[in-house]
Amino acid sequence: MTRYKAIVSYDGSAFSGFQRQPHARSVQEEIEKTLKRLNSDQEVTIYGAGRTDAGVHAYGQVIHFDLPQLRDVEKLRFGLDTQCPEDIDIVKVEVVDEQFHARYNKHSKTYEFLVDSGRPKNPMMRHYATAYPYPLDLALMQEAIQDLIGTHDFTGFTASGTSVENKVRTITEASVRQGDSPQFFIFTFKGNGFLYKQVRNMVGTLLKIGNARMPVSQIKTVLTSKNRDLAGPTAAPEGLYLKEISYEE
Amino acid sequence: MTRYKAIVSYDGSAFSGFQRQPHARSVQEEIEKTLKRLNSDQEVTIYGAGRTDAGVHAYGQVIHFDLPQLRDVEKLRFGLDTQCPEDIDIVKVEVVDEQFHARYNKHSKTYEFLVDSGRPKNPMMRHYATAYPYPLDLALMQEAIQDLIGTHDFTGFTASGTSVENKVRTITEASVRQGDSPQFFIFTFKGNGFLYKQVRNMVGTLLKIGNARMPVSQIKTVLTSKNRDLAGPTAAPEGLYLKEISYEE
Repeated sequence: MTRYKAIVSYDGSAFSGFQRQPHARSVQEEIEKTLKRLNSDQEVTIYGAGRTDAGVHAYGQVIHFDLPQLRDVEKLRFGLDTQCPEDIDIVKVEVVDEQFHARYNKHSKTYEFLVDSGRPKNPMMRHYATAYPYPLDLALMQEAIQDLIGTHDFTGFTASGTSVENKVRTITEASVRQGDSPQFFIFTFKGNGFLYKQVRNMVGTLLKIGNARMPVSQIKTVLTSKNRDLAGPTAAPEGLYLKEISYEE
Repeated sequence: MTRYKAIVSYDGSAFSGFQRQPHARSVQEEIEKTLKRLNSDQEVTIYGAGRTDAGVHAYGQVIHFDLPQLRDVEKLRFGLDTQCPEDIDIVKVEVVDEQFHARYNKHSKTYEFLVDSGRPKNPMMRHYATAYPYPLDLALMQEAIQDLIGTHDFTGFTASGTSVENKVRTITEASVRQGDSPQFFIFTFKGNGFLYKQVRNMVGTLLKIGNARMPVSQIKTVLTSKNRDLAGPTAAPEGLYLKEISYEE
């Protein structure tokens, strides 16, 4: 038995999410179907580092899986890549220690969130950026986003009813910048883990701040109050990208 | 009667092209249907500056049309934009002289062509860039593309069987650069008019040159020989964008 780690990118537009579920198209099911074909029709289960929601994209999702043989990794990557549907690409495959687990090995994740503030929006980007056709003050958002950096209880930024008990997470990087085309804003968050809908709720709040509909201090208010009702609305998923996952040695 | 000029952007992926045709979805038909709704159910015909093919995108297509009344142009733009399908956006509407004709008034057009040389390609860009998963030498393409600038007979770069008699056109700008993400290459062409499939054939030839499968001198050879067989293959339409149209005063 050989364990493989793979970096996978996908366009989330036509998926119900990463995770396999009945009666819905998932990234997991498509990759597992392809692996089965490459594995003498024997089932293969993949384990993903993160479960992206419907419409969320990935440049750097990480998965692991086991195959009975040691294979040439570039041939395996090429076979998987060409036989997977065209909205999934296999960026890299490597052999790892059989103790490696994509989800449970310690890692940090980087998410990007792309906002199209154009009026009208860019039609080519309608599935790849979240439209927010209102004025945005970059400086206000840059000031507010600093308050997210550090170790905090993010209860106020997760979906209510989340079953995870410990809602303390650490964000090591948080920034926002304007794109080459100034109607686009790119938010970047790096941390040791993110709660359900946390990134989309943080962005929803930052957009309200950028549009001067909430004060710059609102991030602090949501963190200390742990009150979801004080945060902005959940930003739509089209703009969210799982950019990169880095594992500790 | 008031004549309006509008700048239109669209995602060409789900259109059979700009021009209306039976049993196929076209940009022209969708905009005309929307205008009819905004014009007391009276038919409105639009005239486009250029006829983009299936799969070709536009940031700056220009159209003109007539309405019986003088309207507030921002309200008209907003109404058209919100009632058109989501893959068409109306960027700007203005009132023009009733002699103005989007196609026949003298103008220059700028086209961009985006190539994804990544292996694997970027799955988010599969409808918005043409995949060419081979090494490309930017310097070779930058040298060769210079030979396109100027007034030439472009017979060798158009589709064989084109009915247009005069195949002499002037290209005033032609350049190629690498994107922020180095797997992307962006070709830009500006000129007083382009023949059918000319841009895609020029790019197809430049890619062969960049991949060292044709000599740098091949552009000159195709221009002087006027022989389509000596040019590279027609590049796929996904990467082509009608970027901008500038009218002479």
